[in-house]
Amino acid sequence: MPKISKKGLLMPESPIRKLVPYAEAAYKQGKTVYHLNIGQPDIKTPEVALDAVKIHSLDILAYSRSEGSEDYRKKIAGYYSKNNIDVTHDEIIVTTGGSEALLFAFGSIMDTDDEIIIPEPFYANYNGFSTASGVNVVPVISKIEDNFALPPIEEFEKLITPKTKAILICNPGNPTGYLYSKEEIKKLAKIVKKHDLFLIADEVYREFVYDGKEFYSIMQEESLKDHAIMIDSVSKRYSMCGARIGYLVSRNKDVIKTALKFAQARLSPPTLAQIASEAALNTPQSYFDEVIDEYVLRRNILISELEKIEGLRVAKPNGAFYCIAELPVKNADNFAQWLLEKFDVNGETIMVAPAAGFYSTPGVGLNQIRIAYVLNKESLKKSVAILKEALNVYKD
Amino acid sequence: MPKISKKGLLMPESPIRKLVPYAEAAYKQGKTVYHLNIGQPDIKTPEVALDAVKIHSLDILAYSRSEGSEDYRKKIAGYYSKNNIDVTHDEIIVTTGGSEALLFAFGSIMDTDDEIIIPEPFYANYNGFSTASGVNVVPVISKIEDNFALPPIEEFEKLITPKTKAILICNPGNPTGYLYSKEEIKKLAKIVKKHDLFLIADEVYREFVYDGKEFYSIMQEESLKDHAIMIDSVSKRYSMCGARIGYLVSRNKDVIKTALKFAQARLSPPTLAQIASEAALNTPQSYFDEVIDEYVLRRNILISELEKIEGLRVAKPNGAFYCIAELPVKNADNFAQWLLEKFDVNGETIMVAPAAGFYSTPGVGLNQIRIAYVLNKESLKKSVAILKEALNVYKD
Repeated sequence: MPKISKKGLLMPESPIRKLVPYAEAAYKQGKTVYHLNIGQPDIKTPEVALDAVKIHSLDILAYSRSEGSEDYRKKIAGYYSKNNIDVTHDEIIVTTGGSEALLFAFGSIMDTDDEIIIPEPFYANYNGFSTASGVNVVPVISKIEDNFALPPIEEFEKLITPKTKAILICNPGNPTGYLYSKEEIKKLAKIVKKHDLFLIADEVYREFVYDGKEFYSIMQEESLKDHAIMIDSVSKRYSMCGARIGYLVSRNKDVIKTALKFAQARLSPPTLAQIASEAALNTPQSYFDEVIDEYVLRRNILISELEKIEGLRVAKPNGAFYCIAELPVKNADNFAQWLLEKFDVNGETIMVAPAAGFYSTPGVGLNQIRIAYVLNKESLKKSVAILKEALNVYKD
Repeated sequence: MPKISKKGLLMPESPIRKLVPYAEAAYKQGKTVYHLNIGQPDIKTPEVALDAVKIHSLDILAYSRSEGSEDYRKKIAGYYSKNNIDVTHDEIIVTTGGSEALLFAFGSIMDTDDEIIIPEPFYANYNGFSTASGVNVVPVISKIEDNFALPPIEEFEKLITPKTKAILICNPGNPTGYLYSKEEIKKLAKIVKKHDLFLIADEVYREFVYDGKEFYSIMQEESLKDHAIMIDSVSKRYSMCGARIGYLVSRNKDVIKTALKFAQARLSPPTLAQIASEAALNTPQSYFDEVIDEYVLRRNILISELEKIEGLRVAKPNGAFYCIAELPVKNADNFAQWLLEKFDVNGETIMVAPAAGFYSTPGVGLNQIRIAYVLNKESLKKSVAILKEALNVYKD
């Protein structure tokens, strides 16, 4: 029998995937499961986006341009302009989700065995994209007691080798909810310039910023002109994760020229989704205001309820819709499985994402979980009550 | 300034892309350009597919399952069953186009510097996917005088090294239009089993088979159970290239398990396109009958008109909608550019794909072009008349 590649064997499973059979068993037992484990918001997609595909007049569902249509990219540049980011349409490539933008970025700037430094905990699929691209993640630990702020810049500097090609951040962060300050971005700018590295920022949660804080994009940092690669996506912004439309944005012309070759090889991003995504740019501000208000309420309820649980520590998020909580358990993997398999309160239980999968340093984050506040307030309250009761009962 | 990767520099440009500026200049001059260069058919998408997205009742455009929904995959298995291919839904992964299925296949079975043998001329993007995956294409030349039939199996055998992991064919072939016979598939089966390789077949043109010939899939070859990986796509079958829905199909459970990890990292294939593609499975047989009749007519006209041109040699295709023609010119790249830049018949000219980009052996196919017969009969007739006149005038 022919063999699977080493790369294929190394490809990580999603940290949540392991729990899926236990969730399915719980459904079969008739349990209600509150899903705190996923990044799929319950927020409705703007009607303007959903309607656009209902009234399409296509008679051939044809390829689009590999980089997305010029019209669409000009509108995207207009969106950025409103967000204090000054880019032209030819500095944007439309991709199949932020995922593909990351793959194109990795392929354009890294060869096999090159290294990318990422503050951990980080979005688990960065591991998958790194393995698929044949490159190595070098983690820098950020700490729950610091609210997952940027680790001291010396910690990055220690890890830079001739193989280091980039630093990658997610801002605001999944899974931490941490919003990097302007000062932190400037520190990163200084170090990438000093060592001639790229700075990749996954800014898909740009709109989800709370408490009057200001979001500062790497694209606003003039000094990063040749160094900055921004990853973006419509998935969370318009609650249209299933569209699979993202953008790779850079002022570095060589990066765009190279990423375009990757884009050409796969022909085009999905056409119907581009119709919906282009229309989504007309979403009224009131939609976002309501969504942000809702997330702030949810976060406030979630954090204040979590803080009432003895022995639990939680980092307060200023952005995105996740938080990391440290539990008074030894192994959150086992605990998450137990919640689905053995526990319920009146037939109800919760599914959480064990945080170890968001770290690449072995043994770190074993007692942490990620909670996504993508459920309504009532469900969130119930979920935290279930968690509290579970921690009372659980022995590991 | 930070550097682009070696991989990024090596990524090939599309062989047609170089001509695009000349085509745009031709439009500006007011010329009509007949596009014989692209694989985007002018055939209408089945209404049942286009209508399905018009009547969707989604209020959240959510992620789908990474491998596609169970329902959809069961229907796909039903489609294969009607095509004499016996697979179950869990042997199918829904991908973002055939392109992504190929990337998943390459990643699952090959590591950096591994080798894949491909009869050339081959679909140019196989070069891009190979470079992106860090693997090397080893070509076996198939010849226009043999109609691009399978090269002698000894030619493959000579090229097999410990780094060889797979043989890749496209059947029926883009750009050759060649349909492999059952005997040829059996020869390939024997060699991949002998050397414990995978056999990947890109069968996206399965329906486009003419002259009463029978299509024989690698999935029909029982002996290939663990060796066969089929790549498929809705793009050509239903003239919905812009959907970006494909399938990776294999009975090798390790391949499916591994490809699924790549699929999970990118979360999900596009949801709207899956709605259209699932509905497309209900396309009535009459649609295909009409389409095939149309392509046969077009091919007959194209080939008979081309054969009238002195000094031109053309391989007669039995499938897909391409043919390769050898021209009495030294360099088809220059000729194709000249057609756009310097030539017209009453304000009309043609755009063709120089075939050198479909070969990976340098210097081969320089006097060949690929013609896609994706235009109506009248336009095809006019196009060949323009080609004939151009060859009368052209000097290289």
